[in-house]
Amino acid sequence: MTKLLYPTSLVLDVASLEGYSVQLVPYDVKAPQIPAEHHDATILVTWTNTPDNLRYAQANLKNLRWIQSLAAGPNDVLGAGFDTSKVTVTTGSGLHDRTVAEHALGLLLNGARRFYEMRDFQLQNKWPAHLGGPQPDRPKDRFTTLRDARVLVWGFGNIAKCLVPSLTVLGAQVKGVARSTGVRDGVEVYSEDHLAKLLPETDALVMILPGSDSTKNALNAERLKLLPNHAWVINVGRGTSIDEDALVDALEKNEIGGAALDVFQTEPLPESSRLWKAPNVVVSPHAAGGRPQDAEALITYNLRRFLAGQALKNVI
Amino acid sequence: MTKLLYPTSLVLDVASLEGYSVQLVPYDVKAPQIPAEHHDATILVTWTNTPDNLRYAQANLKNLRWIQSLAAGPNDVLGAGFDTSKVTVTTGSGLHDRTVAEHALGLLLNGARRFYEMRDFQLQNKWPAHLGGPQPDRPKDRFTTLRDARVLVWGFGNIAKCLVPSLTVLGAQVKGVARSTGVRDGVEVYSEDHLAKLLPETDALVMILPGSDSTKNALNAERLKLLPNHAWVINVGRGTSIDEDALVDALEKNEIGGAALDVFQTEPLPESSRLWKAPNVVVSPHAAGGRPQDAEALITYNLRRFLAGQALKNVI
Ligand SMILES: NC(=O)c1ccc[n+]([C@@H]2O[C@H](COP(=O)([O-])OP(=O)(O)OC[C@H]3O[C@@H](n4cnc5c(N)ncnc54)[C@H](OP(=O)(O)O)[C@@H]3O)[C@@H](O)[C@H]2O)c1
Ligand SMILES: NC(=O)c1ccc[n+]([C@@H]2O[C@H](COP(=O)([O-])OP(=O)(O)OC[C@H]3O[C@@H](n4cnc5c(N)ncnc54)[C@H](OP(=O)(O)O)[C@@H]3O)[C@@H](O)[C@H]2O)c1
Repeated sequence: MTKLLYPTSLVLDVASLEGYSVQLVPYDVKAPQIPAEHHDATILVTWTNTPDNLRYAQANLKNLRWIQSLAAGPNDVLGAGFDTSKVTVTTGSGLHDRTVAEHALGLLLNGARRFYEMRDFQLQNKWPAHLGGPQPDRPKDRFTTLRDARVLVWGFGNIAKCLVPSLTVLGAQVKGVARSTGVRDGVEVYSEDHLAKLLPETDALVMILPGSDSTKNALNAERLKLLPNHAWVINVGRGTSIDEDALVDALEKNEIGGAALDVFQTEPLPESSRLWKAPNVVVSPHAAGGRPQDAEALITYNLRRFLAGQALKNVI
Repeated sequence: MTKLLYPTSLVLDVASLEGYSVQLVPYDVKAPQIPAEHHDATILVTWTNTPDNLRYAQANLKNLRWIQSLAAGPNDVLGAGFDTSKVTVTTGSGLHDRTVAEHALGLLLNGARRFYEMRDFQLQNKWPAHLGGPQPDRPKDRFTTLRDARVLVWGFGNIAKCLVPSLTVLGAQVKGVARSTGVRDGVEVYSEDHLAKLLPETDALVMILPGSDSTKNALNAERLKLLPNHAWVINVGRGTSIDEDALVDALEKNEIGGAALDVFQTEPLPESSRLWKAPNVVVSPHAAGGRPQDAEALITYNLRRFLAGQALKNVI
């Protein structure tokens, strides 16, 4: 019978995977080896496997025909050297939309409502009077609320589409940037050659780009200069898409309003990074995702199609 | 002609108030006096007036028949001793719904995503690895996301109704508590005698109660004990509705998960308060509202009705 190895590194509702002509076998993704009796597995589901574990699987699971990763991207699986002409690799794209979107919203509100600055006062038993009480309503030169804020989402994929309803409920005006121009889910999305026009009209720039050669340092010094001085930059995509030195320069010169970052060029962020102490920076430790949602639905969807010889979802 | 005095303490679109048989006159709400030539005013719009200014108006504006406050409550106006049998007082209830709801959402996400704890690490150039990377999905013993979280909103008025869509978009299960039981805006709302059943089933308790005798110390030691150990308490209503000593005790004994508070028994929160340093407390300096939204619409709505001799909106 077809054997599927599933990870014990997350709580899966295994019962919901039953009912197919498939033998379901748990395995330890952190173990350096996979037991010899399971080297005949056809399907491998991965989540937070160690590089050693994946390399061992690559070298020993000779019958493997499909790897279902639960991570948003296939980098760890590809890094182990699987031959994608023999093994189909599918990602967990879509499983992280809700968690990452929620975190992005939290980072946006952290910037607008300045909870990080309140914290600094709290640590000294001090009331930050300037952040409370009567305040100017939606001042032009600051990002203080999502209401009527012009939010530009750069990287308008699954996560962005999941974030948009939260932004519009709060009254934000959302636009997107992706590889082609057109209306998606009711939002105006533009290709990158429109950035020179879009960035100056942005109160909050939310970056949700994947890591790739084409997104490397996408937000560079030149583009940072196009943002208004009060604009905030949020990044929940990949750290490689921002030139961090240029970002710190812009922050220190008050050329932008602040930055709330969940991802970095190097993670963990090195103790020596200038980002820790740059003004109005919120450092979040790659905490947005990391919790696949409804993984069982994706696994069974693809399992049915695999058994029926049909094309799978999220093939890389 | 009927004279209306409007405050210069906020930016009003005065043109949108024109077109009625009313003379519109700006006045300084912080000045100890109001110029003698305007003592004949019939209508006074107030916003962040000093107590002296309001007392002066009470003593000198003998023709006054209506006060439109832009604050959520009438406490400052009533404190100046106006005789409400002669002067109709209307509040700005409704003008603060969106700003306070947005702040409440920010406080909830601050608790769930632990941005305050990340900040403490950031100040030491330290990466809080335990808060990022792969994480358990919606663990039963912690409040980590609004998805599937059981949110109980105590005080189910205008602000609560404005907050609900943001919560449901993120997947929360919302219930309410008010003075009577029934479904409101599609949400199950219960009277306070159901609290003993509701509190143990709550992951996040959002308090949006007005300050009054009937809400004093509404959340007391006994009710705090009914909450699960991981539950967060958010308060954007009035500080008087929480017994702060009982709250700090519960926090220090880890009997609740945390508290994010925008309002306090005494404001500014005294330097000696135990709240500053209690575990998992977020102190926000009464920053949720303070920015009336669309005040012109309420003023003109009530102005038309006043001139037509009809009942006004938000009469206290
Ligand atoms: N922080 C975290 O914990 C966390 C968790 C999960 C994922 N992530 C990151 O988030 C990224 C996005 O996830 P997703 O599910 O939303 O991905 P997705 O659905 O594949 O969307 C990616 C978007 O980026 C756009 N894009 C790609 N290359 C581009 C380029 N060179 N210029 C402009 N736009 C470009 C795509 O444009 P088109 O639509 O035009 O193709 C698409 O709109 C992932 O790749 C991952 O790196 C982070
Ligand atoms: N933090 C800030 O910056 C800020 C800004 C604006 C306002 N606020 C505060 O927020 C409060 C609520 O504002 P709102 O506009 O939502 O008020 P609202 O529309 O008058 O709603 C008040 C709610 O509280 C309920 N309530 C009153 N007394 C109660 C009691 N003893 N037991 C149970 N429920 C009770 C009411 O129940 P019923 O519906 O059954 O009558 C109603 O649902 C204001 O009074 C103000 O103190 C704070």
